[in-house]
Amino acid sequence: MATLFKDVLMIDGSRTKAERVHILVSKGRIESILDVNQTPPTADKIVYGHGKMAVIPGFVNAHTHAAMTLLRGLGEEAPLMEWLQNKIWPVEDKLTPEYIYWGTLSAILEMLSTGTTCFADMYFEMDRVAEASLSAGIRGALCRGITAGEPGKLERSLQNNLELAENYHGREGLITVQLGPHAPYTVPIEFMKVLCESAKSHGLGVHFHFLETKNELDNLGMSPEKYLDESGLSDVPYLALAHAVWLDPNITLPENVTLVHNPSSNLKLGSGIMPLPKWLERDVPVALGTDGASSNNRLDMWEEMRTAALLNKGVDMNPVCVPAVDALRMATYEGARAFGFSRKGMIREGWVADLVLVNLDQPHYIGVNEENLAAYLVYAGSSADVTGTMINGRWAYRNGEYPALDREEIMSKARESREAITR
Amino acid sequence: MATLFKDVLMIDGSRTKAERVHILVSKGRIESILDVNQTPPTADKIVYGHGKMAVIPGFVNAHTHAAMTLLRGLGEEAPLMEWLQNKIWPVEDKLTPEYIYWGTLSAILEMLSTGTTCFADMYFEMDRVAEASLSAGIRGALCRGITAGEPGKLERSLQNNLELAENYHGREGLITVQLGPHAPYTVPIEFMKVLCESAKSHGLGVHFHFLETKNELDNLGMSPEKYLDESGLSDVPYLALAHAVWLDPNITLPENVTLVHNPSSNLKLGSGIMPLPKWLERDVPVALGTDGASSNNRLDMWEEMRTAALLNKGVDMNPVCVPAVDALRMATYEGARAFGFSRKGMIREGWVADLVLVNLDQPHYIGVNEENLAAYLVYAGSSADVTGTMINGRWAYRNGEYPALDREEIMSKARESREAITR
Repeated sequence: MATLFKDVLMIDGSRTKAERVHILVSKGRIESILDVNQTPPTADKIVYGHGKMAVIPGFVNAHTHAAMTLLRGLGEEAPLMEWLQNKIWPVEDKLTPEYIYWGTLSAILEMLSTGTTCFADMYFEMDRVAEASLSAGIRGALCRGITAGEPGKLERSLQNNLELAENYHGREGLITVQLGPHAPYTVPIEFMKVLCESAKSHGLGVHFHFLETKNELDNLGMSPEKYLDESGLSDVPYLALAHAVWLDPNITLPENVTLVHNPSSNLKLGSGIMPLPKWLERDVPVALGTDGASSNNRLDMWEEMRTAALLNKGVDMNPVCVPAVDALRMATYEGARAFGFSRKGMIREGWVADLVLVNLDQPHYIGVNEENLAAYLVYAGSSADVTGTMINGRWAYRNGEYPALDREEIMSKARESREAITR
Repeated sequence: MATLFKDVLMIDGSRTKAERVHILVSKGRIESILDVNQTPPTADKIVYGHGKMAVIPGFVNAHTHAAMTLLRGLGEEAPLMEWLQNKIWPVEDKLTPEYIYWGTLSAILEMLSTGTTCFADMYFEMDRVAEASLSAGIRGALCRGITAGEPGKLERSLQNNLELAENYHGREGLITVQLGPHAPYTVPIEFMKVLCESAKSHGLGVHFHFLETKNELDNLGMSPEKYLDESGLSDVPYLALAHAVWLDPNITLPENVTLVHNPSSNLKLGSGIMPLPKWLERDVPVALGTDGASSNNRLDMWEEMRTAALLNKGVDMNPVCVPAVDALRMATYEGARAFGFSRKGMIREGWVADLVLVNLDQPHYIGVNEENLAAYLVYAGSSADVTGTMINGRWAYRNGEYPALDREEIMSKARESREAITR
């Protein structure tokens, strides 16, 4: 089945201006992009844009813990360690595979309606997360969060993560699997070495929390460069460092690194503010993520994009830093690339059709044009503008409906799960 | 006509927890609030909440320049003075009364759909802004922006502002008028003295930009305390100081002051970050505003509420500062009180029915209850959750429709105006 987007404004994360085009999607891919003055091809389904709709790449939420939707609002306004130890971890202990499945699907409802087509998730019972993703038709970059605990827990968790890779890596073109050591303070460096060797031998990337708080930097025991080197992280096929608030932007990073900026979560937990402009100046790849819904509390990439674009302008008193085109790139292409998805995150002939349809026929888009679309999206836009989210050429969300999902059942099961863990 | 909100969660800016109640609105006022276990009264119209809707006070956008919707997106990513002098002022010179009327109505469409029931506006051709407000049925706190220029301009502008007060102050219970000297750097202090005497003799409040940038503080020529005193501002009936980013939070302010925090605009223009937690600790009243749509670029109080609540947590690395209940109060009650509206901005029997209906039957509200509603609204909520905006007991916005306004005509006229000024 082919879908034609007729007369739409198209932009992506390639830092170029928008264009007014026709886009033909067929067999899950972008088959052709024609200038609006050319005769559009025929298609089974036609979306008439009349120049008042934008088509943008799907957002990639490059760091989250989706099932934490079940923990949203628990322990508001508390510091990171107190929040984790007193509010989050005791409740997490009550999570079952079933609860995680429904909590993840509830997160997916929220992500699809806000234009996210791919999410990078670190949690546990990840086979349930994989099944939730496959049933929703959303792309997932999945890893098992690995932390120390009783004897043998690290080894079992790694084994579990490797089984996840064996069972799900590459499934339906939707899933990639990474290894997911939690953080330097929850995984001993000796085990990091084992894990990184395993990542290399299996050809897997690593998704890791790194230097989220100042305390973590102070207790690292060595320089961040040395840590990345000694642990073996600098040698794994690819490495996503979530948060990285306290990483010095003057150091040289290994080539395999993408930083994942989580501005809302870093603000909310009082972790600090990443010196984003300095990383961008140096062309270090930076993707964007929401973090879990219990420290954000939204899974809405529009919000992260806007916050990322505004925050450092104020902190550095520099209104020209973090331009809108960079924020859009971080929210789309950089995340897809970071997690091993190829030909995704941009709108190119032959690339995968992960797209978001945005309604520009609204008061706050008056004045939008090819030159300024990125700025309108980042500064004036919001998830309320999303009218459709397409993954692999199929609508996963369209005008408030989820063609592949039973919204009421998911919400009802998620509510029951929430009640069970907070009882 | 009476409207009953049956079984809704109610919260307001009084820092208390939410309650599950029935609310009866009649003759523009909140007639009664009953516990949900009591038998609800009868009414012509019933909104069935089933415990899955929240009723909150209407937002008060305490500092904006509504017609600047026509200038949205012009000169992105530029410093304040460069942006004003090269991008904004030359285009503003082309604005006619007619353009301002349609630009204001376009802003009103955006404000109503995002839950704003009152806006404090500083601009010119304010009789057109008053007419736009009256036709939309939205509450406006209006002042003429007064700046120096050719000889006699200050006096004429003040005269114009006083005529606005004479013609519109108190009109239909919707409008209050203030005097609107623009800023210390655009109005000489000698004229400020004349203006403040006039404010006192006419019983009018003053709406003023104060210390938005560091440069402004450096060039004030005296201490801020002395400026407020010498200018006469400390003696006017009430005083809204917009931005106030660079005001030292340790100084003693006159009793008549409300600070108006504009976090998005201050970030976007690189002006800096207000030390909000220190003002809140001292119980100095702080309201919230969006500023104009060309420096934000949204007129969405949900965004300001969230940004205000998150920003200083990160900057001060203190996750307990600016709690959600304070952000909600700043966005509602504090703004109404600041601009001379009485019995508005809270939900109390006998108070005016300026209300917003919020749809909680969505994935991101799973887990919401009486204890945590404020935090859900501030951290997880967004303007996409608004299903109705009621002013004076009448729906100004409901499920995407504007009962009193012709949305298509307004958008079409606003587009034409935009094209005319940017041609």
